[in-house]
Amino acid sequence: MSKNITKRSEDYSKWYNELVVKADLAENSGVRGCMVIKPYGYAIWEKMQAELDRMFKETGHQNAYFPLFIPKSYFSKEASHVDGFAKECAVVTHYRLKTAEDGKTIEVDPEAKLEEELIVRPTSETIIWDTYRKWIESYRDLPILVNQWANVVRWEMRTRLFLRTAEFLWQEGHTAHATEKEAIAEAEQMLNVYADFAENFMAIPVVKGFKTANERFAGAVETYCIEALMQDGKALQAGTSHFLGQNFAKAFDVKFTSQEGKQEHVWATSWGVSTRLMGALIMTHSDDNGLVLPPNLAPIQVVIVPIHKTDEQLEAIREEVKKITDRFKKLNISFKFDDRTSFKPGWKFAEYELKGVPVRLAVGPKDLENGTFEVARRDTLTKETISKEGIVEYIQDLLEEIQATLFKKAFDYREAHITEVNSFDEFKEVLEGKGGFISAHWDGTTETEEKIKDLTKATIRCIPIDRVEEDGVCVLTGKPSKGRVLFAKAY
Amino acid sequence: MSKNITKRSEDYSKWYNELVVKADLAENSGVRGCMVIKPYGYAIWEKMQAELDRMFKETGHQNAYFPLFIPKSYFSKEASHVDGFAKECAVVTHYRLKTAEDGKTIEVDPEAKLEEELIVRPTSETIIWDTYRKWIESYRDLPILVNQWANVVRWEMRTRLFLRTAEFLWQEGHTAHATEKEAIAEAEQMLNVYADFAENFMAIPVVKGFKTANERFAGAVETYCIEALMQDGKALQAGTSHFLGQNFAKAFDVKFTSQEGKQEHVWATSWGVSTRLMGALIMTHSDDNGLVLPPNLAPIQVVIVPIHKTDEQLEAIREEVKKITDRFKKLNISFKFDDRTSFKPGWKFAEYELKGVPVRLAVGPKDLENGTFEVARRDTLTKETISKEGIVEYIQDLLEEIQATLFKKAFDYREAHITEVNSFDEFKEVLEGKGGFISAHWDGTTETEEKIKDLTKATIRCIPIDRVEEDGVCVLTGKPSKGRVLFAKAY
Repeated sequence: MSKNITKRSEDYSKWYNELVVKADLAENSGVRGCMVIKPYGYAIWEKMQAELDRMFKETGHQNAYFPLFIPKSYFSKEASHVDGFAKECAVVTHYRLKTAEDGKTIEVDPEAKLEEELIVRPTSETIIWDTYRKWIESYRDLPILVNQWANVVRWEMRTRLFLRTAEFLWQEGHTAHATEKEAIAEAEQMLNVYADFAENFMAIPVVKGFKTANERFAGAVETYCIEALMQDGKALQAGTSHFLGQNFAKAFDVKFTSQEGKQEHVWATSWGVSTRLMGALIMTHSDDNGLVLPPNLAPIQVVIVPIHKTDEQLEAIREEVKKITDRFKKLNISFKFDDRTSFKPGWKFAEYELKGVPVRLAVGPKDLENGTFEVARRDTLTKETISKEGIVEYIQDLLEEIQATLFKKAFDYREAHITEVNSFDEFKEVLEGKGGFISAHWDGTTETEEKIKDLTKATIRCIPIDRVEEDGVCVLTGKPSKGRVLFAKAY
Repeated sequence: MSKNITKRSEDYSKWYNELVVKADLAENSGVRGCMVIKPYGYAIWEKMQAELDRMFKETGHQNAYFPLFIPKSYFSKEASHVDGFAKECAVVTHYRLKTAEDGKTIEVDPEAKLEEELIVRPTSETIIWDTYRKWIESYRDLPILVNQWANVVRWEMRTRLFLRTAEFLWQEGHTAHATEKEAIAEAEQMLNVYADFAENFMAIPVVKGFKTANERFAGAVETYCIEALMQDGKALQAGTSHFLGQNFAKAFDVKFTSQEGKQEHVWATSWGVSTRLMGALIMTHSDDNGLVLPPNLAPIQVVIVPIHKTDEQLEAIREEVKKITDRFKKLNISFKFDDRTSFKPGWKFAEYELKGVPVRLAVGPKDLENGTFEVARRDTLTKETISKEGIVEYIQDLLEEIQATLFKKAFDYREAHITEVNSFDEFKEVLEGKGGFISAHWDGTTETEEKIKDLTKATIRCIPIDRVEEDGVCVLTGKPSKGRVLFAKAY
């Protein structure tokens, strides 16, 4: 096939870049760092959105929409927030173009300069908390449980499709609460929603944890995260949920009258996942033949390819296929019957393999005679011949099995790549060897964390939520530590 | 009630502005011309999106996503396009902020100036046709049937919530075809999809027509539109579909090899509707008591308010209500049982009236005794007492009846406000009298069109698709005309 991609073992990074483009997921645009998400890639994102949106609504959240632009002055109100984002802001300074004096060139009209510059949102805490001030007077107005699906811009110098782009799509939840306890419970709840989604839909096992002060969101008191492990042994942060304390309420003067009649600042959370998850999905499951998609997020779960020489044969196949696709519809199994005659079956097989369709059915004249279909699994690349009686049930079970198999494979890989180390030599050896998560003692200081990063490029991915209390000594400094944290090189 | 809004007869414009805010649909933000769409308003938009998205997919379209930013040079490639949009462009010129020398103020970093300015998309033809060049080689790659849900920015000086905002949400379809005929058929198909949506979901009757050259989309060969009539006699353009000819293909050098082996430029369409539809929805049906929503787009179709003094009574009501809401769920009837004790029934009645919930059920101890519910219709403000036996079917029918009634009312109003006139005096008299659409002969020149606009503020809303050929003389110039066009003052 002409669609060969670089092998993972040769160059993992190149494999990823080629796969994203050749499987029609996304491509670079003419705008520096901004991607085009192609229809097939967007269809996967839409499936992710639909499941997440359902989960958000089931936990009581509503969607809303806030402005794309943030006045520069808002942005500056929360000190650590502006520090965190100032270096990567796209800034709107003018509101008009005009024809230059040559009568041809189009230029920015210098007379249309904005009084105050507008920042294209890199995240929306500031504009949202400026709005919440108007919405909140009393405890009766709380909690506010709002989510937004939006595009955001963070000016990145080195970009990669899905993983790091100047513009990306995401959802950002922003909630307001009367008590600290309730806000913390919300941040934890949303972390669990993300973990549930990652594991049960994306088939990606994740570690739930806290970020260290150094890796915390700019403006947060506590950042919770889910961390996944890619096939090259590098970690990927797949979602974060922040307990913001009263930082934004104080910066934007958002108070409420409590049940006791006192004026208090509101407690906040925010939480988000982005099109970065597409990168995680691709890198967790795919192989040298192309994309591998978990059935729960595959836009096409089953593709059916007819094998025929005559129009009569195609008609007979069509009739047989219709019987099972009618039942697929009722069972909400998504399918595509690819009866295009402009492409040969072999070309189609390669195409759907590249695109990661979980199950492929092939049916030719012999199958018609025997009353069978050829069923091929994308994940294991195995084939079976199955009788048409009961094939729908067979496929229904098979889709569930593939989903479970993909999760187990990723889980086993992850488990085999969490290594406890007790010396810095061991740390470096594992990191440069098999990679993955390194579970090590750390003295709790940002200084040590930075030093380890400088020496090894590994960062603390998280302090696992379920970590065991354990007395130990820091792998670098030998100072006392109360428990292990997870280090890794990361995307 | 404290929620009184200005009467339509007093000040229609004020009524609209107050209603949008008081019904919790949207509000102005701290960013000039940009609105916040509040959860209740966004829930209506989500219902619109869901139906439109389904209709687009049923007609073979897929969603994708293209960059927010457009390089200035792309924008200039199609001459009439840049002319149309240059005056309302938000321009990104820098990509970083920094702390000023005072150590406090945040300012734009002059060293982070972009080599080429980026325009925040006012529409995406240019960036999309730059992309299609890479996607299209042969007739086999055609048609491309793509839609995008996105935010766009057009710098408007005088803004109004939903009707005219600097940033708005919309969908934009962009299709590429091998033949002129196919592209025209696509543009017409999408116009019909919009008309179907407007009439059957929004309950808004629309006139389908062509725009005159003067009102055409910048870069289009033909612009099709649907035009609706608001209760104040002003027209509102509710959707447009453009046949773009080969204009963008030529500007971006997009050619394909035809089946005969020739290199030809690709044919294009684009089509869009926006959050402006929210304004049309509000202004078509609502009354002096607040919003009136058609059941097919109402986030809550039925609200149930318990009337009780004791907890015991509430428990008994809850039990009775559960029986019917369990059946609502199966029938996909959306409902809310508002059992909050912090608000009185009267407050709730006013609240849901203001928010346009189509059907309200009230149930108190007496109803429990009699086995009845009080059923109130939002559109007619009438009440009935209905036996609990068969109430679910009754409500199911009632929702359909309300949908039909709203459409008929709007249709009758529209029909009563299309007036044929044969002189310019008559023209002005009707325009300043009852308003609405004025059906008049026009000589076909932009000059006359502009003159009428200057004299009366009325514009040609459209040349109706189904207009009858009829010899006549222009209402202003007396020159010959082959058929009537529709004039109106418009939003």
